[in-house]
Amino acid sequence: MSEAVLTQPRLVTLEGGEGAGKTSAIAAIRDRLQAAGHEVVLTREPGGTPLAERIRELLLNPQDEALAPETELLLMFASRAQHVREVVRPALRRGAFVVSDRFTDSSYAYQGAGRGLDPEWIAALERRAVGVKPGLTLLLDLDVREGRARTAGRDLWPDRIESEQDDFFERVRAGFRARAAAEPQRFRVIDAAQPPAGVAAAVEAATTAYLRTLTDSDLA
Amino acid sequence: MSEAVLTQPRLVTLEGGEGAGKTSAIAAIRDRLQAAGHEVVLTREPGGTPLAERIRELLLNPQDEALAPETELLLMFASRAQHVREVVRPALRRGAFVVSDRFTDSSYAYQGAGRGLDPEWIAALERRAVGVKPGLTLLLDLDVREGRARTAGRDLWPDRIESEQDDFFERVRAGFRARAAAEPQRFRVIDAAQPPAGVAAAVEAATTAYLRTLTDSDLA
Repeated sequence: MSEAVLTQPRLVTLEGGEGAGKTSAIAAIRDRLQAAGHEVVLTREPGGTPLAERIRELLLNPQDEALAPETELLLMFASRAQHVREVVRPALRRGAFVVSDRFTDSSYAYQGAGRGLDPEWIAALERRAVGVKPGLTLLLDLDVREGRARTAGRDLWPDRIESEQDDFFERVRAGFRARAAAEPQRFRVIDAAQPPAGVAAAVEAATTAYLRTLTDSDLA
Repeated sequence: MSEAVLTQPRLVTLEGGEGAGKTSAIAAIRDRLQAAGHEVVLTREPGGTPLAERIRELLLNPQDEALAPETELLLMFASRAQHVREVVRPALRRGAFVVSDRFTDSSYAYQGAGRGLDPEWIAALERRAVGVKPGLTLLLDLDVREGRARTAGRDLWPDRIESEQDDFFERVRAGFRARAAAEPQRFRVIDAAQPPAGVAAAVEAATTAYLRTLTDSDLA
């Protein structure tokens, strides 16, 4: 069993907190990649396969049972192990781009920085259960209060994670920024405080610039 | 975060393959412990809490999606992490005995020996997500074909794991026996080929002998 985490140039992930505008950003990435002639598979985590979506439902709506942080982490990686084997790797193998709304960085941010679980454990799970990492990660960075103000209207029934307090989301944001600072060649940090058109333009520019760095073998 | 796996004298587990008679054996353990004046909590894995039972349902009935071995292992430990925190530890803390139909040994046997996943990974998950191990484990050992013959009548709709082939169950049985051989002080291997009354008598005798070894501090 290989334990290396291999960078996959055609795997692009989008990360960020609540209300940062990931949905429009992911459409901008898809449009840019399709305009360049590539097949694009859009997917999301937790979820991405029928079974992984059932795990997502357990995570977001545990029905009054307190979910231990360790349970949360293991469910996230169970869902991710399935998603990688059923969706991500098959699409990469046939030459498609895979654009995922959240991926392993979210576990470092939410379960690691947010819940306080050991990042070494998360790294071990990434090696054992995932084995791939994105070539490009766009981090939509936004002030926590601003993000919550934006989602306040739309979430009449906030899920378990959305119901956390601001200090949790501050730790998550700091966790994302620390990962971006540690891997500047993979991350592009986008200021999500600007108007939606500005975010979309920044996302598109970052995708275009990234495509220029890819070689023929990255795209084969 | 502690990573030691602590032996819990009042945690008793029952392990074994299909058709070995675990249901009657667990009743015999309970009766013996209650006769000695102890509170007994009966539980099972995967499952044991409402959320863990929902994970069990995903594991046994994944609805036509092939479950990757890594996904299976992580779901087992997600369920176990929850079970330990919500049921096992609280019961042990108040002085009860916990008798579990399957526990971590089953992951070494089914996902390790059976599916071929690295036992070092399983040991790491045990340290990180479980942290406790039983003081006594009764292994009901039975010839694979004999076990399948016994369950053939009752399982009109065998679940995903029951539907595996004999060579899988041979590896699982060998995995259990190897664990018993490696920890003879914790395991009692019971010949499950004998008639039910003989199995129950052997289980009761092993439980009685174990209780005699416990000190006041083990029972406090």
